[in-house]
Amino acid sequence: MNHLRVPPMTREALIESLKPLLEPGKLLTDADSLDAYGKDWTKHFAPAPLAIAFPKSIEQVQAVVRWANEHKVGLVPSGGRTGLSAAAVAANGEVVVSFDYMNKILDFNAFDRTVVCQPGVVTKQLQLFAEEQGLYYPVDFASSGSSQIGGNIGTNAGGIKVIRYGMTRNWVAGMKVVTGKGDLLELNKDLIKNATGYDLRQLFIGAEGTLGFVVEATMRLERTPKNLTAMVLGTPDFDSIMPVLHAFQGKLDLTAFEFFSDKALAKVLARGDVPAAFETDCPFYALLEFEASTEEVANEALATFEHCVEQGWVLDGVMSQSEQQLQNLWKLREYISETISHWTPYKNDISVTVSKVPAFLKDIDAIVEANYPDFEVVWFGHIGDGNLHLNILKPENLSKDEFFAKCATVNKWVFETVQKYAGSISAEHGVGMTKRDYLGYSRSEAEIGYMKAVKAVFDPNGIMNPGKIFAE
Amino acid sequence: MNHLRVPPMTREALIESLKPLLEPGKLLTDADSLDAYGKDWTKHFAPAPLAIAFPKSIEQVQAVVRWANEHKVGLVPSGGRTGLSAAAVAANGEVVVSFDYMNKILDFNAFDRTVVCQPGVVTKQLQLFAEEQGLYYPVDFASSGSSQIGGNIGTNAGGIKVIRYGMTRNWVAGMKVVTGKGDLLELNKDLIKNATGYDLRQLFIGAEGTLGFVVEATMRLERTPKNLTAMVLGTPDFDSIMPVLHAFQGKLDLTAFEFFSDKALAKVLARGDVPAAFETDCPFYALLEFEASTEEVANEALATFEHCVEQGWVLDGVMSQSEQQLQNLWKLREYISETISHWTPYKNDISVTVSKVPAFLKDIDAIVEANYPDFEVVWFGHIGDGNLHLNILKPENLSKDEFFAKCATVNKWVFETVQKYAGSISAEHGVGMTKRDYLGYSRSEAEIGYMKAVKAVFDPNGIMNPGKIFAE
Repeated sequence: MNHLRVPPMTREALIESLKPLLEPGKLLTDADSLDAYGKDWTKHFAPAPLAIAFPKSIEQVQAVVRWANEHKVGLVPSGGRTGLSAAAVAANGEVVVSFDYMNKILDFNAFDRTVVCQPGVVTKQLQLFAEEQGLYYPVDFASSGSSQIGGNIGTNAGGIKVIRYGMTRNWVAGMKVVTGKGDLLELNKDLIKNATGYDLRQLFIGAEGTLGFVVEATMRLERTPKNLTAMVLGTPDFDSIMPVLHAFQGKLDLTAFEFFSDKALAKVLARGDVPAAFETDCPFYALLEFEASTEEVANEALATFEHCVEQGWVLDGVMSQSEQQLQNLWKLREYISETISHWTPYKNDISVTVSKVPAFLKDIDAIVEANYPDFEVVWFGHIGDGNLHLNILKPENLSKDEFFAKCATVNKWVFETVQKYAGSISAEHGVGMTKRDYLGYSRSEAEIGYMKAVKAVFDPNGIMNPGKIFAE
Repeated sequence: MNHLRVPPMTREALIESLKPLLEPGKLLTDADSLDAYGKDWTKHFAPAPLAIAFPKSIEQVQAVVRWANEHKVGLVPSGGRTGLSAAAVAANGEVVVSFDYMNKILDFNAFDRTVVCQPGVVTKQLQLFAEEQGLYYPVDFASSGSSQIGGNIGTNAGGIKVIRYGMTRNWVAGMKVVTGKGDLLELNKDLIKNATGYDLRQLFIGAEGTLGFVVEATMRLERTPKNLTAMVLGTPDFDSIMPVLHAFQGKLDLTAFEFFSDKALAKVLARGDVPAAFETDCPFYALLEFEASTEEVANEALATFEHCVEQGWVLDGVMSQSEQQLQNLWKLREYISETISHWTPYKNDISVTVSKVPAFLKDIDAIVEANYPDFEVVWFGHIGDGNLHLNILKPENLSKDEFFAKCATVNKWVFETVQKYAGSISAEHGVGMTKRDYLGYSRSEAEIGYMKAVKAVFDPNGIMNPGKIFAE
């Protein structure tokens, strides 16, 4: 990969040479735009882009990529900028390529259940479009109101329904990408079966824009789930959550299996706007969801619940009987992240295989407790797929700087524990800039070497989202 | 990619230098072994391997790969050798690496529903192992009694349940591969969520052993389907099959949706060992399958059937009421391939998106009818995923050579039609050697260029299954 040197042209000359490749007014350089479009939801890096480009066609994207190759200027793709790993941050004079004006749904095919989307289509927009067609787009997460399909693909977005529907990867029937060399590739052409060599589509999914930019994607839709029903169950300890998961998975096709700790619940209930599920205090809670498509299924769920109570794995529980109750139960889980943001949490998004979760969680708890007895740890996450969100809250009496300095030490221990359990240091948030120095905890040196060589194939000048995943 | 030159050592010296890397007796050079292990189910290429190596460990595979790099000798991976594209044929003095002695199931995890397999585990062996655990391995096809997991991954095997369960790709939780450089990579470590850079696992799946060899794989299992039930429906024309598929997909989670023509059915019924589904003669038949997990589901299926009859899309139909009836209905579809092999069929395994199937099929039919009115065309396939098996039967009065010469012309027209409909010239059989010269009908020149460059990253000396997917 080439190091990006200070370009020989002045900033002004560069901007002037870029401007004609876009429609009038579609290249912004004012301070507010540079600041707004230069960053994502992370706050670690100061945005410092050269300019913000808003292409309106695939051809314009290709022209910008060719321009970037010629002038050796980095490009940062920009969608809803809801990322949590600084993969969409432009901190080093890059040109941000925003897909805000390529935000249309171009086609729908009822037989194939496919929707052709421009990359700037917002996740929620696709979900609502699917609803209008009597269908369902199942990838869902907290930022679905802002995140865009191109970004979802770039990070292989997951969320709360992965246990049943998988990641974004599963829903990409085909896509068009512009590589770092400016080539337009039409990958997989929306086929279900296609055994004609390497599935390059898979390589671009989750590549965080470092190989090329998604400029169009055909997404699959699914039938609408029938009568979604949630249970919230309280357990006597964390270990009991695992046999509960196992028991329900043996009987039902779960659409979600989430968990949260008593501390997480207490914070949400303290808001006063969400009703408690039940009175019994428990150290841990599971939220599970399934399609109660028939009465038999609902009865099976109740029987499994009773079995779990008899076994001593569950102390108390409720099952939603209406859409309103379903939503209220989900709020107990979904409001956690927003609620605890008040305590300036140090967040980690980690995963191990499901069976290793109890031992892994105990190890991390022990580390934090032994070294920082005054730190409050809030656990929640997608336990059904092994993805844990570890949140350490800042004690009131500790300054922000001191807290983050101490967390940096915790970080190292957490990642060493992740490595010990053969886990992932980034389950669904991606690597970006925040995790790139820790990549070695999850990927071997040889793997990283091959990844860099693959990057060089598609982006020989290193202009596509430079500094993300790997250091420059 | 380097061209494989005649190596400087004699055959004998090469064999002697390879022998110590394997256990005693695990390098075969007798004529019978060379012939048996040098080919797959295709018959176009004469096998001519240098030797057959049977490694018993990952270290031995690595040693063989290092040896091959040193001596610039090609390696051909060999599993069940049931392939239909000559991807496992050694026709040019390669060393065949057979995984017959790496055929153990190494581990099982009930919580994660995962099985760690050596590459030589036979598909059926995994299916039966899953059954013993009360679980299910859903990838299934005609050759499951011989095909091996390593080969399934190399070709991303599909089969008859793709509409519900997807291809082999969906079931690989993680895998170990030895690259063309001899590196051992442990890809994805069986995680469900892992956003730490490029998912190289995906690149190796379907790569036909041209980047490296799978030496271990963790496969996911699924819950056992409940009360699988099949319907066979007769339709008045091909076009009616599509609204039938659409109607059933809107109401049920189908596990299969296959079709076959009257000609295909007639050949199977003429065997005399399979009962007819019903008396009514129809030009086309659909076989669909679903889990009749509750009576309500079965009633929904019957109501949908009645709706299809009312609409004129279905002329007659039956629904299985027992496991025996289920199996008998499946025989009508599954026996086709074996039955028509008597007529020396010219086979093509092609796909288009589902909605394009009717127009595509008519185009192909018209081409064959106009040019070869005396050729009998037998259609069948996995219509639910757009995968059609086109079989042209040899007229009795035509010699084999003449027939295949004429088919070569048909071939070109078929592929041009596939290209016109943005389809795949190999839906599930892979490219190997039989389709490599036609790759351009499904993949662009730019894509093929990138694929070759990716190959060079993992296999710089071009020793891994040379001449497959691309010409040397």
